[in-house]
Amino acid sequence: MPSISPRGASLPASPIRKLAGAADRARAAGRTVFQLNIGQPDVASPQEFWDAVRGYQGDHLAYAHSAGLMELREKAAEVYQRRGIDVGPQHIQVTTSGSEALQMIMVGAMNPGDEIIVPEPMYANYIGFSAITDVNVVPLTTRIEDNFRLPSSEAFAERIGPRTKAILICNPGNPTGTIFDDQQLEELRALALKHDLYLIGDEVYRDFNYTDKPVKSVLQLEGMEQHAVMVDSASKRYSLCGARVGFLVTKNEALLDAALRYAQARLSSPTLEQIGLIGALGAPDSYTEATREEYRARRDTLVRRLRAMPGVLCPDIEGAFYATVRLPVEDADAFCLWILEEFSHNNATVQMAPASGFYRTPGLGRDEVRIAYVLNNNDLNQAMDCLEAALLAYPGRKS
Amino acid sequence: MPSISPRGASLPASPIRKLAGAADRARAAGRTVFQLNIGQPDVASPQEFWDAVRGYQGDHLAYAHSAGLMELREKAAEVYQRRGIDVGPQHIQVTTSGSEALQMIMVGAMNPGDEIIVPEPMYANYIGFSAITDVNVVPLTTRIEDNFRLPSSEAFAERIGPRTKAILICNPGNPTGTIFDDQQLEELRALALKHDLYLIGDEVYRDFNYTDKPVKSVLQLEGMEQHAVMVDSASKRYSLCGARVGFLVTKNEALLDAALRYAQARLSSPTLEQIGLIGALGAPDSYTEATREEYRARRDTLVRRLRAMPGVLCPDIEGAFYATVRLPVEDADAFCLWILEEFSHNNATVQMAPASGFYRTPGLGRDEVRIAYVLNNNDLNQAMDCLEAALLAYPGRKS
Repeated sequence: MPSISPRGASLPASPIRKLAGAADRARAAGRTVFQLNIGQPDVASPQEFWDAVRGYQGDHLAYAHSAGLMELREKAAEVYQRRGIDVGPQHIQVTTSGSEALQMIMVGAMNPGDEIIVPEPMYANYIGFSAITDVNVVPLTTRIEDNFRLPSSEAFAERIGPRTKAILICNPGNPTGTIFDDQQLEELRALALKHDLYLIGDEVYRDFNYTDKPVKSVLQLEGMEQHAVMVDSASKRYSLCGARVGFLVTKNEALLDAALRYAQARLSSPTLEQIGLIGALGAPDSYTEATREEYRARRDTLVRRLRAMPGVLCPDIEGAFYATVRLPVEDADAFCLWILEEFSHNNATVQMAPASGFYRTPGLGRDEVRIAYVLNNNDLNQAMDCLEAALLAYPGRKS
Repeated sequence: MPSISPRGASLPASPIRKLAGAADRARAAGRTVFQLNIGQPDVASPQEFWDAVRGYQGDHLAYAHSAGLMELREKAAEVYQRRGIDVGPQHIQVTTSGSEALQMIMVGAMNPGDEIIVPEPMYANYIGFSAITDVNVVPLTTRIEDNFRLPSSEAFAERIGPRTKAILICNPGNPTGTIFDDQQLEELRALALKHDLYLIGDEVYRDFNYTDKPVKSVLQLEGMEQHAVMVDSASKRYSLCGARVGFLVTKNEALLDAALRYAQARLSSPTLEQIGLIGALGAPDSYTEATREEYRARRDTLVRRLRAMPGVLCPDIEGAFYATVRLPVEDADAFCLWILEEFSHNNATVQMAPASGFYRTPGLGRDEVRIAYVLNNNDLNQAMDCLEAALLAYPGRKS
């Protein structure tokens, strides 16, 4: 029988979804499962999205232009301009969400065996995309004790070798909630220019910013026109994870051209959802503000509750809707399975993502979990009640 | 400035879309452009699709399961069963259309440098997917004079080497309209079993069959459970090219597992369109029959008109909605540009896809074009009037 390839074998199973079977069994047994494992926002999408989708008048659904609908690219450029990011529609490639944008960049800018430096813990699917595209992810470890701040420029520079092509950051950060400040971005800028690297900013959480300063885009760094590449998505901002529409934005024409040729091979991103997103981008700022305040309140609840649990280390969380948290356990994978299989509190349990899958360096993150605070405050409090009780009851608790 | 990769540079521009600029200029100059270049069907999608989409009651759009919505997989399995293809939902991975299914197979079953044998002329984007995934496409030339029938098993076997992993066929064929008969499929089956290769059937045009025999799926070939992989899509069958939902179907569990891990990296196919497709799959058979009869009439018009043009060779067309046709010109690329830039007939012109981009062997197909007969009969006749007049007027016509 024909075998799968070494490449196929190397594709990682998602650490975010790998406990799905245990969660299904818990639900089948009648327990409520609070899902803190996946960054699946639950607030209502802008009405403008639904109006645009339902208002579509065609009787069939044609391919969109491979670069994306021009009206969508124009609207997106307008929104970026309003936020001080100086790009036009010609700098925007519409993608089948941020996932495809990252694959386009890895294929267009990197050959098999090339390297990309990524601070860890990192969005686990970066590792999946790198396996698909045969790019090597070189991790640069950040530490929970430092609130996951970037290490020094020197530590970064040590990772740069002849095959390094890019630095990839997620800002605000998944899975850490960290926002890189101007100084850190300036250091990254200097590194990218000195070593002629792409600086890729995964900025899909830009609007989830609980600090009093704006999140700076890689596209706003000076002299980086050829180096800066931004990845964006409708998924998180508008609770449209299922829409699969995002953007690759850069002023590097050669990379945009490669991305377009990639896009031509797969023809089109979803047309109906592009039409919907044209609507959503016209939603008033109050939509974004209300969403941010909702998540800020959830963040506050989460941090307060976690910090009150003995032995739990919850770092500062400035953005996105995740926290990577240290638990008083040896093996968070085992704990996350145990809480689903063996534990309940008020007939409920909690699904979390073990953090080990977010590290590239083997052995790191063993006692950490990623929590996505995508539940309303009431549910979140109940989930925290459950976690608190579970940590006290867990036989494997560290003394 | 950071460069794109050799891989990025190797991504081909789409031969289907490469004359878009010239077509835009023709339209800007006030001429009607009959688009025969792209397989973009224009009949109405099933009402059941629109009802399902508009009936969606959620206020936000969540990720679907990475394998696809279970209800969609169940419905698809039911439809396959009705057509004599014995699969269940557990054999179906929902994909972001056929394009993604092919990339999943190339990544999951093949390593960089592995080979896949494909009869040429072939769907041009196979070459794009192979460039993205670093797989080598080994072409096996079929000839217009033979109605693009497969060459002998011996010719096939000569192409098989130590790195050959799969044979890929498109049946009914894009760009040729050929349908492989039982004998040809039997030969492919024997080859796949003897050399332990995957036999991948791109069967997205299954319903566009103008012969009196059913199109046999690779999944219906005996003893091929581990070898047969089928690619399917909603795009053509339901005029839903913009929906981006398709299927990868196989009983090979290891390949399905690799496909699922690939799918987990990109999280989800479009949710709203999956919901719509659940509806569309429930459309009555009369929808498919009416669509087929519409295209059969177009096929008849196209063949009749082309065969009446002096010097044009139009082979037999049994399925899909394409014809690869020989024109009395030296260089069809130049002719296709000329007709857009320099020619008009009743203030209209025609966009076609030069066939050279559908061959992998350099130099082949220079005097051929691919015509997608996706216009209603009236427009198609006008397009043929235009092509006929253009061929008579073309300064580069072969004498």
